[in-house]
Amino acid sequence: MDKLPKRPANYVPLNPVGFLPRASAVYGARTSVVYGRLKFTWRQTHERCRRLAAALVSLGVRKNDVVSVLAPNVPATYEMHFAVPMAAAVLNAINTRLDAKAVAVILRHAQAKVFFVDYEYVRLAHDALQIVADAGAPVPLVAVIDDIDRPTGVRLGLFKLEYEALVRKGDPAAELPSLEDEWDAVALNYTSGTTSAPKGVVYSHRGAYLNTMGQLLSWGVGNEPVYLWTLPMFHCNGWTLTWGVAARGGVNVCIRENRAADLYRAISDYGVTHMCCAPVVFNILLAGQAPRLAAPVHVLTGGAPPTAALLDRVERIGFKVTHSYGLTEAGPALACEWRHQWDLLPLAERSHLKARQGVSILSLADANVVVDDDTMSNVPRDGKSLGEIALRGSSLMKGYLKNLEANEKAFKGGWFMTGDVGVVHPDGYMEIKDRSKDVIISGGENICSKDLEYTLLQHPAVADAAVVAMPHPHWGETPCAFLVARDKAAGVCEDEVIAFCRERMSRFMVPRKVVVIDALPRNALGKVEKVKLRDAARNLVPSTVARL
Amino acid sequence: MDKLPKRPANYVPLNPVGFLPRASAVYGARTSVVYGRLKFTWRQTHERCRRLAAALVSLGVRKNDVVSVLAPNVPATYEMHFAVPMAAAVLNAINTRLDAKAVAVILRHAQAKVFFVDYEYVRLAHDALQIVADAGAPVPLVAVIDDIDRPTGVRLGLFKLEYEALVRKGDPAAELPSLEDEWDAVALNYTSGTTSAPKGVVYSHRGAYLNTMGQLLSWGVGNEPVYLWTLPMFHCNGWTLTWGVAARGGVNVCIRENRAADLYRAISDYGVTHMCCAPVVFNILLAGQAPRLAAPVHVLTGGAPPTAALLDRVERIGFKVTHSYGLTEAGPALACEWRHQWDLLPLAERSHLKARQGVSILSLADANVVVDDDTMSNVPRDGKSLGEIALRGSSLMKGYLKNLEANEKAFKGGWFMTGDVGVVHPDGYMEIKDRSKDVIISGGENICSKDLEYTLLQHPAVADAAVVAMPHPHWGETPCAFLVARDKAAGVCEDEVIAFCRERMSRFMVPRKVVVIDALPRNALGKVEKVKLRDAARNLVPSTVARL
Repeated sequence: MDKLPKRPANYVPLNPVGFLPRASAVYGARTSVVYGRLKFTWRQTHERCRRLAAALVSLGVRKNDVVSVLAPNVPATYEMHFAVPMAAAVLNAINTRLDAKAVAVILRHAQAKVFFVDYEYVRLAHDALQIVADAGAPVPLVAVIDDIDRPTGVRLGLFKLEYEALVRKGDPAAELPSLEDEWDAVALNYTSGTTSAPKGVVYSHRGAYLNTMGQLLSWGVGNEPVYLWTLPMFHCNGWTLTWGVAARGGVNVCIRENRAADLYRAISDYGVTHMCCAPVVFNILLAGQAPRLAAPVHVLTGGAPPTAALLDRVERIGFKVTHSYGLTEAGPALACEWRHQWDLLPLAERSHLKARQGVSILSLADANVVVDDDTMSNVPRDGKSLGEIALRGSSLMKGYLKNLEANEKAFKGGWFMTGDVGVVHPDGYMEIKDRSKDVIISGGENICSKDLEYTLLQHPAVADAAVVAMPHPHWGETPCAFLVARDKAAGVCEDEVIAFCRERMSRFMVPRKVVVIDALPRNALGKVEKVKLRDAARNLVPSTVARL
Repeated sequence: MDKLPKRPANYVPLNPVGFLPRASAVYGARTSVVYGRLKFTWRQTHERCRRLAAALVSLGVRKNDVVSVLAPNVPATYEMHFAVPMAAAVLNAINTRLDAKAVAVILRHAQAKVFFVDYEYVRLAHDALQIVADAGAPVPLVAVIDDIDRPTGVRLGLFKLEYEALVRKGDPAAELPSLEDEWDAVALNYTSGTTSAPKGVVYSHRGAYLNTMGQLLSWGVGNEPVYLWTLPMFHCNGWTLTWGVAARGGVNVCIRENRAADLYRAISDYGVTHMCCAPVVFNILLAGQAPRLAAPVHVLTGGAPPTAALLDRVERIGFKVTHSYGLTEAGPALACEWRHQWDLLPLAERSHLKARQGVSILSLADANVVVDDDTMSNVPRDGKSLGEIALRGSSLMKGYLKNLEANEKAFKGGWFMTGDVGVVHPDGYMEIKDRSKDVIISGGENICSKDLEYTLLQHPAVADAAVVAMPHPHWGETPCAFLVARDKAAGVCEDEVIAFCRERMSRFMVPRKVVVIDALPRNALGKVEKVKLRDAARNLVPSTVARL
């Protein structure tokens, strides 16, 4: 049994990029990508990716070089998910909602060799590159991504390279490097770009392949999906569906912005069957006159559990919602697999069941709620006992790039510790009861409260600071800062603190409420009791200033 | 990127057996297996498998030891798919349609350490063990599998060990060996047990895991399937669905025999949603008064393409047929992924499209039709140019056990050569035009014509022999032997030759027609022109003798 060797025929590195040549071979004439008046087939997408990969190689891109992209859900971002690893490089899709400083931190930490920038983000990229240059760090080659049917303007002068020109220039017949090892990196996704030690999550080809398979299975994506890109591709590579839609020979419907009219038009024009989004997109879909859908659209949602009211309203229109849970370090991890018999339950009970994060996807070896101590024992399955969600499996990240400390902290006793606190119900379904202590999720974006506290403490009038989530009618939640004034008599001015933050961080991270208190509540060990602050924040309303 | 090490948390060997503990954890209270009055939950199945694995270890079973089973689709066969590899051993499920000699060849070649035998096959096993013992080869430990609600009789005296007693005796808390390497063997499946060099196909855990994922995806098996075991589990581990049903937390409906009444009763009693079968089972389903199904049943079929007439009749009853292609060496390989738009076509066109074997499943890296020469170039995608179906990917077998020659022949130029001849249509769908020269598929069972010819040549009256497939109204096809008499005047007696074969091979392999001719048609190189013989056989009818 043991003497049978691995052969090139029966031991092929697992690789999600391989879904593209397969799609070109077996779904070649079917539509791959639509975007406005633009439409490609899978054969064309494959050729365009081969061309871009060849162009990257001829620019000097080599194995493990990072190629960054700052762009919305346009065809270029999609194509780069294949073209960049086809050049043996690592794709780094950057969150377009970050500010210049955060983008600069990522570009430096990743040591990006090439940087693709959508025309809409030229200013942001310019500022970020300036910060990189001012620090004396190496500046990447920059290429602009223009909408194909828009005339290319002054931007080209500024940026030298242009996406379509690279695609045209690349030789589709050039021999590309083949994947040597499935453990090789395919993507680099940052969880946060504001701290001094950014966490760059590295995915292996093996992990991304398995995650894609697991996601397709757990969500039940069949043949020929028509997938609407509401979820940004820069979030965990579109929860793996960048690769997944190719695996299924589906249609990628790209849109630049999530406006209700655009979403409904895309759904009806292309017969959308699937989309992913944070619950905030439900608010967009429900604003104004929401039409009843002609055919059901399957929606995978995550970040925060959809509320019963929201669920009821979107499901009435014709959306079929699956609730899932994932994180940058793991990609998709849990999914609330729906049982047919639950369809018969009243709405309140259904939402209650659907609010649970659910069971591990098949590409994980194990998921559980454990007590984070030496024993790492499982909590009882009583729906009450709290523990930390822990994951294990080949679909997890390789680790954080150049961040030994974060790696040692995250990987523990054979598990990856998510930092999220939850319970296991008697039926084995997991539910998160308390998000990772430091994370606030606003409109699907993770905000690190530790980062905010660090910035707030730099304000001359602030002596102590703690940031927690407060409810927000549109964004789900938003940061609320509790501050202690250095000079009790002088106090701290809320508007000024908010202005101070807006200069120093991405807009979505800015606290929308500042509360000045005498002292932060601390326990006997000196730790801030955030539970108390969250309770207090529950009854506050966001400040008007921050809403501007 | 390269410095991030593999860790126990993020590099877990891929293992289809892991679907069982997951099912126990997250689908624990749901039904796993039903069989007559017997019913288990996933938690019970997990515990029973742990017990059996512990019992095997205490019998002395060690890593890479082979545990064979000769049984129909009963719960024990299902459980052994998990319990045997949980003991680090390799499962060898033997085709119950073989004769004693063929079973003996397998037991010897596999060096089976333990041999489980269903009560119905005690006589066959006894004869096979006698042959093994007579040859002075080591005889395995033998355990009988009795139906749980049947009283155990004399058989125990003969066989010493009994399945349920082992399950009872095993300690469910015993520590079991953990999988060291995903390349380690999980199963050993024989393609043929009659030749002097049997081909024992070894699956790795990695391959079986990927194949299971690929099969679930390509067939679109969603949550909570109710799976009816019509396909024998000894065929490629039930086309991977032994492991696949656990992955999906489905119900395994076990039946001992494929009788129409039993099949329809199971479908209606348990709400069957999925089943696999060779087209021969369609004949069983259509015989007599076929009721209309209350809900659609998805059927995956393979071996031979379903004819238009058959397809029409089964689909009218409510079966939804997917046509697929696989082989022992690869497991599932191609599936005729159905396009929604094809539903609108007239029946004849639909069957024509469905008769194609289709596109590669996602766990393969590549599948193509190639010219088997030094270039291994692809044939044009014209639906006409013939080539050999070639496969590549981690879901393929590790190789043939102790058969260097077969391995060297099968793995060629980075491909696994299937031996099947086909074309690629312009849309990328593959279609087999001529089965591997030596294989006849009768009622879903592969018969090696070379083996038959070898046996026929041992008959004193036979000078030359060639065996090809002839059509058969029930079995699809059946072997037809063309013989040249040693003494032209004396000839060869058909009945006698058939009787001769029945003594020497499994019943399903026996030629059902013998034709005596002056000389076999041979080409310039001396090769028998089987195409001509197949044409001749097309108009013959099976002999009455062989039908007994």
